[in-house]
Amino acid sequence: MNAAKIIDKTILFTTCPDPTISDEELLVRVAGAGLNAADLLQVGGFYPPPNGVVSDIPGLEFSGTVVAQGSKVPTNWINRPIMGIVAGGAQAEMVKIHFSNAIEVDQTLPLVKWSAIPEAYTTAYDALFSQGEISAGDRVLITGATGGVGTAAIALAKFAGATVFGVSRTDEGLLAIERQGAMAISPSQIATSGPFDLILELVGGVNMASNLQALSLLGRIVIIGVGAGPKAEVDLRMIMAKRATVRGSTLRPRSVGEKAQIAQRIQSHILPAIKDGTFGPLISAVYPASKAALAYSDFSKSKVGKLILDFSI
Amino acid sequence: MNAAKIIDKTILFTTCPDPTISDEELLVRVAGAGLNAADLLQVGGFYPPPNGVVSDIPGLEFSGTVVAQGSKVPTNWINRPIMGIVAGGAQAEMVKIHFSNAIEVDQTLPLVKWSAIPEAYTTAYDALFSQGEISAGDRVLITGATGGVGTAAIALAKFAGATVFGVSRTDEGLLAIERQGAMAISPSQIATSGPFDLILELVGGVNMASNLQALSLLGRIVIIGVGAGPKAEVDLRMIMAKRATVRGSTLRPRSVGEKAQIAQRIQSHILPAIKDGTFGPLISAVYPASKAALAYSDFSKSKVGKLILDFSI
Repeated sequence: MNAAKIIDKTILFTTCPDPTISDEELLVRVAGAGLNAADLLQVGGFYPPPNGVVSDIPGLEFSGTVVAQGSKVPTNWINRPIMGIVAGGAQAEMVKIHFSNAIEVDQTLPLVKWSAIPEAYTTAYDALFSQGEISAGDRVLITGATGGVGTAAIALAKFAGATVFGVSRTDEGLLAIERQGAMAISPSQIATSGPFDLILELVGGVNMASNLQALSLLGRIVIIGVGAGPKAEVDLRMIMAKRATVRGSTLRPRSVGEKAQIAQRIQSHILPAIKDGTFGPLISAVYPASKAALAYSDFSKSKVGKLILDFSI
Repeated sequence: MNAAKIIDKTILFTTCPDPTISDEELLVRVAGAGLNAADLLQVGGFYPPPNGVVSDIPGLEFSGTVVAQGSKVPTNWINRPIMGIVAGGAQAEMVKIHFSNAIEVDQTLPLVKWSAIPEAYTTAYDALFSQGEISAGDRVLITGATGGVGTAAIALAKFAGATVFGVSRTDEGLLAIERQGAMAISPSQIATSGPFDLILELVGGVNMASNLQALSLLGRIVIIGVGAGPKAEVDLRMIMAKRATVRGSTLRPRSVGEKAQIAQRIQSHILPAIKDGTFGPLISAVYPASKAALAYSDFSKSKVGKLILDFSI
């Protein structure tokens, strides 16, 4: 098969061996694969996949059609359209996934566009609901609100009944946030725009002082991105006085079982709202998979929504 | 009445007006009152009590005998021995408390010694159980483990079935930690003595980097003291990679209702173990209340356990 392969810290679209599946896995012909900041880190050598995962093909999410399945997969998945998150290897013509982590999709979106959903919506869902304990009526701040996860987080936080504020540095970003129905603010306005019950930090340490200032009593800060740098100077008295909770997490190293739990929640809580058109993925660009190298170099440019690789063209 | 009164940022034992009680309050003749780091901060002008609380008499905890009660207190408290936490004013011959926050005590300890319990055990209980979600089998680290809260935390964490590590800078402190049945380590050993499921941070920002290094996956850090300084430099990637939770809180500004909840938990979970001798307060020194000024100046010296003021001598 062809895949986006890491060679000498760059991406080359070239041939690789097909994945081989185990008893409980599905083999999928990929339609689309999303690009994530983590992929860039991996290409740069900074974020190797967990043990046992293909290390020279990046890609954490995909959509596609099941073409084979292991002998212990309990139901028939052949020819079904699915999406899913994996710990690596999604940016290839073929990918494998544990059957419990596959999420069946339908015709609401072209199959390739479902690939913009799994990582962004799973990350945003986990951060808002599981870690951030979002409630209707909460005032929620989302920094880095224009990327894939940020736009998914705005959609999900609004869906949960929250009043949502999004942060962007660019005029284009602020406009996009407003178009999603959220309040748009610049980073310098964070400290004075609170109190926020929940803050999703997607940018990094630079925001932490403002975040703590703007946090409400019993507020939560969930850290899921540090693209602008991980170091934060924190005044612990603020955490005490606000009775705050600061949490962080990554999805990638979680077990198959934990990912299955999340997949199930996406299926029951989020898919119905996508299928009935309440929200959907914001896609900034679709690149043919053969142009993966270009997609990687364009990824860091200012954009709104997800960048995906199309394996059907 | 006489009280430890704040005059020009020092303590003088002198006369003050008696407190007047409202419909739902108890008036208490104080037997003993504990000293806390927060009192020193208040004397120094850095930690004023919440609105509506006497501001020139420090003291957050006491034991004593009820001598009067408001007209809406539902049961008869007169002559009953109690202990409790208040937002200020406990270091006086008379103190008032909302009836829902009073905890009845018995003869297990001399009445004056019950005053070593409320703030320390409430703080440690809240941090370990409510915020830290301690479980049997957890490996728990307690920094600043020789003070009132630290010694209470060791006792409670062991009671909860945890394996407990205490941190002290002094040989005397390390010995005291071992005598309580915990593993004793110095601050420089924190980073390499993990993984810890739960860390109670009583010292401040200086430990945060080591704490994060020693934290287990899904571990919790609960910050309840910053005596050595509140500034911490934190690597947010560590919080993400460990899927960590960092929490902080203070008890003092909580509402009467929240304090009543805590009092009830102390009553049902902790008092039985004190009464049957499973653990009790570690008391470093008892000063006559008239020597309050000396007690304050001695407080910051190295010690193991609580320092209390005795109002009966």
